[in-house]
Amino acid sequence: MTQLIQTLTGIVGTHNVLQGTDLSEYELDWRQRVRGKALCVVRPGSTAEVAAVVKACAAAGAAIVPQGGNTGLVAGSIPDASGTQVLMSLRRLNAVRQLDPENLTLTVEAGCVLQTVQEVADAAGFLFPLSLGAEGSCTIGGNLATNAGGTQVVRYGNARDLCLGLEVVTPQGEVWSGLNGLRKDNTGYDLRDLFVGSEGTLGIITAATLKLYPKPVAHLTAWAAVASLEDANRLLGLAHRQLGASLTGFEVMNQFALSLVDKHYPHLRVPMWHDHAWCVLLDVSDHESEAHARGLFERLLESAFEAGIVADAIVAESLKQVHDLWHVRESITLAQVEEGHNVKHDISVAVSRIPAFVCQADAALAAALPGVRFVNFGHLGDGNLHYNIQAPADCDAKAWVQAHETQISAIVYEAVSAFGGSISAEHGVGELKRHLLPQYKSAVALKLMQAIKTAIDPLNTLNPGRVLDARH
Amino acid sequence: MTQLIQTLTGIVGTHNVLQGTDLSEYELDWRQRVRGKALCVVRPGSTAEVAAVVKACAAAGAAIVPQGGNTGLVAGSIPDASGTQVLMSLRRLNAVRQLDPENLTLTVEAGCVLQTVQEVADAAGFLFPLSLGAEGSCTIGGNLATNAGGTQVVRYGNARDLCLGLEVVTPQGEVWSGLNGLRKDNTGYDLRDLFVGSEGTLGIITAATLKLYPKPVAHLTAWAAVASLEDANRLLGLAHRQLGASLTGFEVMNQFALSLVDKHYPHLRVPMWHDHAWCVLLDVSDHESEAHARGLFERLLESAFEAGIVADAIVAESLKQVHDLWHVRESITLAQVEEGHNVKHDISVAVSRIPAFVCQADAALAAALPGVRFVNFGHLGDGNLHYNIQAPADCDAKAWVQAHETQISAIVYEAVSAFGGSISAEHGVGELKRHLLPQYKSAVALKLMQAIKTAIDPLNTLNPGRVLDARH
Repeated sequence: MTQLIQTLTGIVGTHNVLQGTDLSEYELDWRQRVRGKALCVVRPGSTAEVAAVVKACAAAGAAIVPQGGNTGLVAGSIPDASGTQVLMSLRRLNAVRQLDPENLTLTVEAGCVLQTVQEVADAAGFLFPLSLGAEGSCTIGGNLATNAGGTQVVRYGNARDLCLGLEVVTPQGEVWSGLNGLRKDNTGYDLRDLFVGSEGTLGIITAATLKLYPKPVAHLTAWAAVASLEDANRLLGLAHRQLGASLTGFEVMNQFALSLVDKHYPHLRVPMWHDHAWCVLLDVSDHESEAHARGLFERLLESAFEAGIVADAIVAESLKQVHDLWHVRESITLAQVEEGHNVKHDISVAVSRIPAFVCQADAALAAALPGVRFVNFGHLGDGNLHYNIQAPADCDAKAWVQAHETQISAIVYEAVSAFGGSISAEHGVGELKRHLLPQYKSAVALKLMQAIKTAIDPLNTLNPGRVLDARH
Repeated sequence: MTQLIQTLTGIVGTHNVLQGTDLSEYELDWRQRVRGKALCVVRPGSTAEVAAVVKACAAAGAAIVPQGGNTGLVAGSIPDASGTQVLMSLRRLNAVRQLDPENLTLTVEAGCVLQTVQEVADAAGFLFPLSLGAEGSCTIGGNLATNAGGTQVVRYGNARDLCLGLEVVTPQGEVWSGLNGLRKDNTGYDLRDLFVGSEGTLGIITAATLKLYPKPVAHLTAWAAVASLEDANRLLGLAHRQLGASLTGFEVMNQFALSLVDKHYPHLRVPMWHDHAWCVLLDVSDHESEAHARGLFERLLESAFEAGIVADAIVAESLKQVHDLWHVRESITLAQVEEGHNVKHDISVAVSRIPAFVCQADAALAAALPGVRFVNFGHLGDGNLHYNIQAPADCDAKAWVQAHETQISAIVYEAVSAFGGSISAEHGVGELKRHLLPQYKSAVALKLMQAIKTAIDPLNTLNPGRVLDARH
């Protein structure tokens, strides 16, 4: 292993091979639940260096764990505890390679921070629509490796849908380059989408050509109270019909989730939560004018009132109010932390099945664990809920969560499974959910995945034991 | 082989195993350029029958060639001449399984004709936006197996982008079902997109869950004359910025292509072709009203006139005129046939590189073959041109094409390659372009594709020799 470190130092330079110091920044996961121990951290500065590092590790039989901003929620980029895995940080690989306005594309390296990508697009008059909580520190390579979701998926799709091409270093250290910005190419298998979402187990993404959109001239937000998830779905259907592609966000929040924001951040002035079971946040992006966007919302909400779907609603009066409304939505996660320990889930079912799923999961949990509290919110437009469970009000939350976490998740995932859903809608599998796949994913799918992994990475050196079991 | 036919008859019934009669409908390709000879045609009526047929063929070592509507343009679903391959027609597998309006999804079997899918969606108030010339006879299974494109890709993407999930029979005869209509699912590798576009070489698509869109309330078309492809690109950029997602079509046609329509179909009244090098057809879909759509076009064309981008333009006055304008565009292919033999290409480069590509390819061809005539049209919004070459006016076109076809395509593909483009933008590889891939596709990509094929179909019984070489 000393020999390998010497070789790596020869490739990337002494300053870019880290060992013997505090490597928590790389070895401890974002939620501080998993700590690993790397042989070393290697920080290549070019695609050629990535390829050379991969070749050297393959020759030495050393496993590589690729990492971007280390903001993942499933411990997919943390080395194991063995001290033998090489952690490859892609953060130095952060050049903006090319902006092509006529092709509506932006080619960037994997280590670019998502917010930087958004800003580069914005400065040129375009929108890169991927948007999520960690955007200030997550990297685009990690976003693509995990097929990140976020708040605008209802209009623009997941990270996968925002990528036209990739540059990837294979487990053999070869470089596949697909950065030509083609919108149509039917000359063989879709390698791009195979690497996207494979969590670094099939190849290392070093650069990507991303889709840009013309920047809307106006952005407006509305907040509406509804009596039930059924009504929230009716409002969604109406919004799709009347707004078409102008509908760029549709988030739902239950009363208890909003009550926590009100309790812990009273200055945020949460609208309407007190008298309504659910609130919905809607976003419109408009290519004409703010007045036009406002007209669209007024027409929609009028129809919704008439149809008895919406009990109360406001449209933001200013850009400040747009930010304030979104700030309430984004404060739910922190308010949960303030309230105490809880159990999180990131699940999806078909949009149409959301109400029945929630009804069934709520009932099963309430029966098994009287007093549980439901913090339920998320991207209803995509059928994706963060269905989280807060400990009963009057107990030692930490002990309660430790005692019941496994049972709670099993109940939730059984309900998800009964409704044909996914136990990881947008966060991936990584280390933390790998053991659940055999139970909740089709055996045929797992067999196909394993065959692909073995074919592309026969030595199992790329992020072994993530997504699939390490079998060697 | 007699034994295999008996087994197949036992699975699907005597009437659904065809042999000893005229099988041209299945054995001769759409463009009548390739004729094969099948051992038999087998027509399963359910997914279970497909699986049983695949198992029986695998046990007998017989290859299977899956076929939908037999409208492909690269002979990807025609058996070879050996008389040993089983042609599996999916046309009987044509049930509409489920329409889920709240989830905006439609689940159909592979043999459903595309137009039927469009009509089912339309009758329920939705749009299924895949639209292409063969829609009256091609099947959705074939559309997905070849990742079909068409005329609305600029807004809705290729067939791949319109599919949320698949049901697939693997080469081992197992069924993978992914029809749950999830918009987010990050529990492993993207098998869906691996099967989409794999042309029946990795599995047989038996059903799909498709994305629906709310049906626009108005659809309007404009026709504009521009002096150059550079100006066409400027108009495209302006249209993206002003129309956003309301822009649902952007087609370009050169003067010679339109002159052929005018010559052979004078009753069609081709607008503006006589005085302008290029014409553009723009489509707007609107969720408000026809008046609003008209306003959008008027604003766009006013800006374009002011910027000196557009020389002349009309907006359709009626739905009839919308159809008439599209009919001109769609008549180019037939007008080419009337004019005589020609050489077709289906290429793509980045939108921004289209003008330079055409300039270079035109010059290379004119230098090599004086008198060649360029029929150049296609989906400029996607960087996809049907860059076709008509024989010189005064020669025996058939003999000329026979003598020069290979040389012409080589010149075109060299230019495509120089601009980082694709030699098959939307038609696939099949039999006819397979031999070109080693020259025009990255060796790393081909190696990855071959590894995947071998891993998933180790006996090479599914559509062998298509996309990739048959290696045994």
